Amino acid sequence: MKKALILLGCPESPSQTPMAVYAAQKLAKMDYDVTVASTPSASKLLEVSDPDEYYIKNKTDIESCLDGLELNQYDLLVGFAHKDAAASYFITFYHILQCEAIALVFEKDPELLEEFENMVAENTNAKIVAVRAFHNPTPLRVKFDRVLEEL
Amino acid sequence: MKKALILLGCPESPSQTPMAVYAAQKLAKMDYDVTVASTPSASKLLEVSDPDEYYIKNKTDIESCLDGLELNQYDLLVGFAHKDAAASYFITFYHILQCEAIALVFEKDPELLEEFENMVAENTNAKIVAVRAFHNPTPLRVKFDRVLEEL
Repeated sequence: MKKALILLGCPESPSQTPMAVYAAQKLAKMDYDVTVASTPSASKLLEVSDPDEYYIKNKTDIESCLDGLELNQYDLLVGFAHKDAAASYFITFYHILQCEAIALVFEKDPELLEEFENMVAENTNAKIVAVRAFHNPTPLRVKFDRVLEEL
Repeated sequence: MKKALILLGCPESPSQTPMAVYAAQKLAKMDYDVTVASTPSASKLLEVSDPDEYYIKNKTDIESCLDGLELNQYDLLVGFAHKDAAASYFITFYHILQCEAIALVFEKDPELLEEFENMVAENTNAKIVAVRAFHNPTPLRVKFDRVLEEL
């Protein structure tokens, strides 16, 4: 079974937790064994968002996950990169894993959006889903679906 | 079977969608038939957040719900009131339904928090769960659980 890792940084955006659940469900349907690595605050929101652990079976702390991370441990990396710190995490995980990768970049501010998108593009060969979005998840969801079809 | 209505306004806060799912799950476990009435943007986030409709079975648009609303149609009203518009919706629904009601008031800014709390307190006899919160849902969850135990 292929393994996917979803990376969640600080959950400032109202779209992050819902989109994380959505991504986990989609990848599980594509037969990936899915793990979500997140910061403590993102993790609390996930717990509240999926109280029966119906969508997300495997959760881990982003720092301990990074400590034990090895080349080829996962087949797919999906990272939410809507902050400096989140984009940095994605780039770090990408270079250790060296696997197929998708970065979800979303921001209200078009200049910040471009900055995070460039940061990921200059430092990785990940597929990038960049959307000017805050609380409407639809453009992000549609573009993410399209990238998954190309995998 | 008792019927509960959960009201969702504009989803600016990252806690709203996760807490809406949490509230729906808790109330369903308490044998309520739960309906969620929400604005279009809140509804899109809910769909992404629960793609298999595992937690939320009944969804409706907040405006059409209001149009058909009648006295005693629901036994419990739970409203997220973290904006002017959301607090106004809650007050309007409260006075039509005249049922037991819980307002969840959360805001980063302590002055706005107090303003929304006072707005609900002056206009309804609802139980109020007011928490200074943005992306940590735990204080809101803990206080909400406590209020549910008193029902």
